[in-house]
Amino acid sequence: MTSIDELKTLLGVVSDLNAANGLLSWEQETMMPPAAARVRGLQIATLASVAHEKFTSERIEQLLAALEGANPGGDDAALVRATRRDYDRATKLPVEFVEERARTQNEAHHAWIEARAKSDFKTFAPYLAKMFDLARRYADFVGYEAHPYDALLDDYEPGARAEEIRRVFGQLREETLPLLRAIVAAGDATDYDVLTRDFPIDLQRTFALEVARDFGLDPEFSRLDVSAHPFQTNFSRDDIRITSRFDARYFPMSLFGTWHETGHAMYERGVSAAFERTPLSSGASLGVHESQSRLFENLVGRSRAFWEVYFPRFQELFPEQLADQTGESIYKAVNRVQPSLIRVEADEVTYNFHIMLRFELELDLLEGRLAVADLPEAWNAKMAEYLGVTSPNDADGVLQDIHWSSGLIGYFPTYSLGNLLSVQLLEAAKSADSAVAEGLRAGRFAPLLSWLRENVHRFGRSLLPREITERATGKPLEAGAYVQYLKSKYADIYGLNS
Amino acid sequence: MTSIDELKTLLGVVSDLNAANGLLSWEQETMMPPAAARVRGLQIATLASVAHEKFTSERIEQLLAALEGANPGGDDAALVRATRRDYDRATKLPVEFVEERARTQNEAHHAWIEARAKSDFKTFAPYLAKMFDLARRYADFVGYEAHPYDALLDDYEPGARAEEIRRVFGQLREETLPLLRAIVAAGDATDYDVLTRDFPIDLQRTFALEVARDFGLDPEFSRLDVSAHPFQTNFSRDDIRITSRFDARYFPMSLFGTWHETGHAMYERGVSAAFERTPLSSGASLGVHESQSRLFENLVGRSRAFWEVYFPRFQELFPEQLADQTGESIYKAVNRVQPSLIRVEADEVTYNFHIMLRFELELDLLEGRLAVADLPEAWNAKMAEYLGVTSPNDADGVLQDIHWSSGLIGYFPTYSLGNLLSVQLLEAAKSADSAVAEGLRAGRFAPLLSWLRENVHRFGRSLLPREITERATGKPLEAGAYVQYLKSKYADIYGLNS
Repeated sequence: MTSIDELKTLLGVVSDLNAANGLLSWEQETMMPPAAARVRGLQIATLASVAHEKFTSERIEQLLAALEGANPGGDDAALVRATRRDYDRATKLPVEFVEERARTQNEAHHAWIEARAKSDFKTFAPYLAKMFDLARRYADFVGYEAHPYDALLDDYEPGARAEEIRRVFGQLREETLPLLRAIVAAGDATDYDVLTRDFPIDLQRTFALEVARDFGLDPEFSRLDVSAHPFQTNFSRDDIRITSRFDARYFPMSLFGTWHETGHAMYERGVSAAFERTPLSSGASLGVHESQSRLFENLVGRSRAFWEVYFPRFQELFPEQLADQTGESIYKAVNRVQPSLIRVEADEVTYNFHIMLRFELELDLLEGRLAVADLPEAWNAKMAEYLGVTSPNDADGVLQDIHWSSGLIGYFPTYSLGNLLSVQLLEAAKSADSAVAEGLRAGRFAPLLSWLRENVHRFGRSLLPREITERATGKPLEAGAYVQYLKSKYADIYGLNS
Repeated sequence: MTSIDELKTLLGVVSDLNAANGLLSWEQETMMPPAAARVRGLQIATLASVAHEKFTSERIEQLLAALEGANPGGDDAALVRATRRDYDRATKLPVEFVEERARTQNEAHHAWIEARAKSDFKTFAPYLAKMFDLARRYADFVGYEAHPYDALLDDYEPGARAEEIRRVFGQLREETLPLLRAIVAAGDATDYDVLTRDFPIDLQRTFALEVARDFGLDPEFSRLDVSAHPFQTNFSRDDIRITSRFDARYFPMSLFGTWHETGHAMYERGVSAAFERTPLSSGASLGVHESQSRLFENLVGRSRAFWEVYFPRFQELFPEQLADQTGESIYKAVNRVQPSLIRVEADEVTYNFHIMLRFELELDLLEGRLAVADLPEAWNAKMAEYLGVTSPNDADGVLQDIHWSSGLIGYFPTYSLGNLLSVQLLEAAKSADSAVAEGLRAGRFAPLLSWLRENVHRFGRSLLPREITERATGKPLEAGAYVQYLKSKYADIYGLNS
C-alpha cells in the first residue's frame, strides 16, 4: 500500500465514525424516543472521542510528513493540505484546555437556557466572559498572523480575515442603510394577511418537497423530516438529510426553510465522488455553504419569476386560501421588509445588519474594548442605529442566539458572507450560460445546478473559499453585487424608483 | 479508578460503538434512502472493526485477569464472567479465519439469493458445504466438551448442549405428532375468509400499537416503524425500536408481528438499569428472548381471553370487516392449524416440526452423516414424515431460510426452546401470583409483566439461560408444559375431546 492509500484508509475510518455520529445526532433531532436522550449523549461523546483518537494518531502524522515531502499533485495534494490543516488544529490544543472548554461550554449552554427563560443577561454574563476568555486562549494555541479573530474565523471560513470582513461589511452597511431607510420611509400599504392564513401542514410539505425535487433533491439519496430547528446533514453524498419545521399559520417557515436546506443538500450532493470518506468530502466553508442555501431560498425561491411559474400549482393545492392572490401578490408578501428584533426572522434587507452588529460586538469583546457587563447596552445602541428598534428585554436582544453559549465565536459573519457570495455566484452563472436565466424564468433549474456543480460543488474542501470565489466569479468576495441586487429588487417592490 | 471501574469505562466505549452500529443497521432497514446502501455497508464494517479492536485490547485482558484473581461478588462477578466469555470467543479465532469466514459468508449469501430466485439448490450446494466446513473449524477453535454443535449453540444459547436439545425435542415430537395427526384427521369446517378481508393498514397499526401499549410498550422509550422483515433492536434500555410489516389483505401479519417484537422489547426494557453500557445489558440468549416474544404473540395474543377482551375495540376500528364476527370466531381464525411448507408462516402446532427438521439435518451435516448434495432429499423426506407435505421446489424447501447462508448454524433450535420456555414461564407466573391469570382475563398485563421483570428480565446476561429457567420455574427446560398447552388448546378448538 502506498502512503496516500494508507492515509485514505485511516481517514476512511475517521469518516465512518463521524458519519455514525452524524446519524446519532440527526436521529436525536428527528426520531429518537425522548427517554433515550441521556444515553445518546454518552454515545455521541464516545464516538467523537474515538474519532479524535483515530484522527490524531502518530501514524497519520508520519504519513502526512512523508507525503508533504513527496510533493504529490492534484487531488492528493489537496487531501494532504486539508488533512494537515485539520490535524494541526486537532493536535495543537492541550488536553486540559479541551476538557476545560467542553466543561465551560456545557455550563454556559445551560446558563444561557436559564438566563434566556428569565430574560436575565446578568446571570449569563460570567459564562459569556469565560467563553470569550477561552476564545482568546484558543486563538493563542492555534496561532494567527494579524488578529486573534482570524484564528476563530478559520474554523468556519478557512483563510478568511477579520480585516477583509470589516471592509466588505463597511461597504455593505454604507450602501444598504440608505436603502433600508428609504423603504421604511416609503411606508407599506400591502396587506400581509395571506401569510397567516391556515395552510394545512401536509399540503405545505407536498409543495415544499415538489419544489425541492425540481431543484434537484432526489429521494434516491435524500429524506425530508421534521425537527425543532431546520438543518442539513449527511453521512455520505448518497445519504443526505434535510429537516424543516411547519406552522399551519405561517407557510413561509416551512417553504423557505425547506428550500434553504435543499441548497445545502445540493452542495453536499455535488462534491466529487472521488473525495468519498476523506476530509475533502464536504462544503468548503460555512460561508460557501450559506451561499448555496441562500441562493435557493432567496435568489430563486423569493424571486418574481419563481412565483410566476409556481403560483398555479401553489393555488391548486390551496384554492381557498389563495383565491384572492396572484403570483405577484405572493412575491410581494414573501419579500416584506420589516426591521425587527430577531435575526432568524429577518428579511433580505435587514438580515445583514443583525450580523454586522454581532461581528462588531465580537471584535470589541475579543479585543477587550467592550466589557461583557456593558454588552446589552451596546447591543441595543447598535439595534437602534441600524434597524431603529430596541429590545424591551434581554431574551429578544442579546440572549436570542445559541451561538456564543456554545463557543461559536467568529461564526456569525459566515451568514452574511454567504448572502454576498450567493448573488456574486448567480450573476456569474447567468453571464456564463444564458440557459441559467432562461431556466429560472421557466422553473427549470438544471442549468443553474449544473453550473454550480462545475464551479463550486465538485471541489468540496479541495479549494479554499477564496479560491472558489475567484475561480467561479473572477473576483474576490465583495458587497457590490449584493447591494445592486437589493437595490434593484426592493426599489421595484417598494416603488422607490422615483 | 479501581479495576472494575476501568473495565466498565472501557466496556462503555465498546457498548457505545455497538449501539451506534445498531442505529446504522436499524436505520438502513427503516429510513435510509436507497442510494446510501453502499457507503452504509462500509460504515457498518468500520464500526464493527473498531468495536472489535477496542474490545480485544490487552488492557481488557489484564483487567479481567486481575479481577478474576480478586474474586469480586454479585453483579461484578457476573460482569467479569460474561466479559471473559465474550473476550475468549472474540480472541480465539485467528485473523485469517475471521477474514475467510466473512468472505465466504458474503459469497454464500449472494449465492443463496441467486439460487433461491432460480429455485436451484445445486448452485448453492458448494457454498453450503463451505459454511458447514467453517462451522466445524469454528467449533475446533473455540472448543467444546461433548459435541462440536455445542460450540455453535453456545453463541446463541450459552451453556446449552445438543444432547439436551435432542432429548427435549424427542419428547416434543413424540407427544405432538399424534396431536397434529388428530387435528388433520378431524378436518376443519371453519370459514377463514375474515383473514383475507381488506383491513386498512393505518387502522391495523392503530390497533396493533394500542395493544402493544397495553402490554407495556411506552412511546417514551420506544418506536414502531416498518421494515421488510420485522425485528427488535435497541441502543439502550431507554431507546428501543420494533418494526412490523403490513398487508392490507392479511391482518395477522402486522398484529402478531408487532406483539412478537413487543415481547422482545419488553425484555430489553426490563434488564436492570445497573447493567447499562456493559455486556450484561441484553437478553440472556436467543431462546430466552424468543420465550418473551412468543409469550406475548401466542400465549397472550392468540388466547381466547385476549380476543374476548379486545374484540369490541377491534370491531370498532373495522365495523364492516367484522360485522359477522365475534371474539370467538377471531380466536379460531388466528389459531388455524395447517401443515405447510414455510416455517415463518407456521402455526403453534406445526412450527416446532420445522425446527426439529432443521436441527436434525444440521447435526447430520456437521457430523458428516449426510452429504450436502443429498440435503434436499433428506429435507423432503422429513417434511413428508412430520408434516405430510413435500416441497415442489427448492425455493420453498431447503432454500427458504437465510440462516445457513449467513453462517447461522446452531441457531434454529432457539426458536423452539423459546416456545417451550414461554409456556413453562407463564405457568410459573400464574402459580406464583393469581393476579397474573386474573389480569389476562381482563386485559391487564401489569401483573404478568411485573413477574417477568422480577424473574427473567432484570437479570440480563448475568445468569445463564439454564439458571434463569430453573430459578423462575423450579425446573430445567422441558417439553411437558408446552405439550400440555397445545393439547388442551387445540383439542378444544378442533373438538378432539371425544
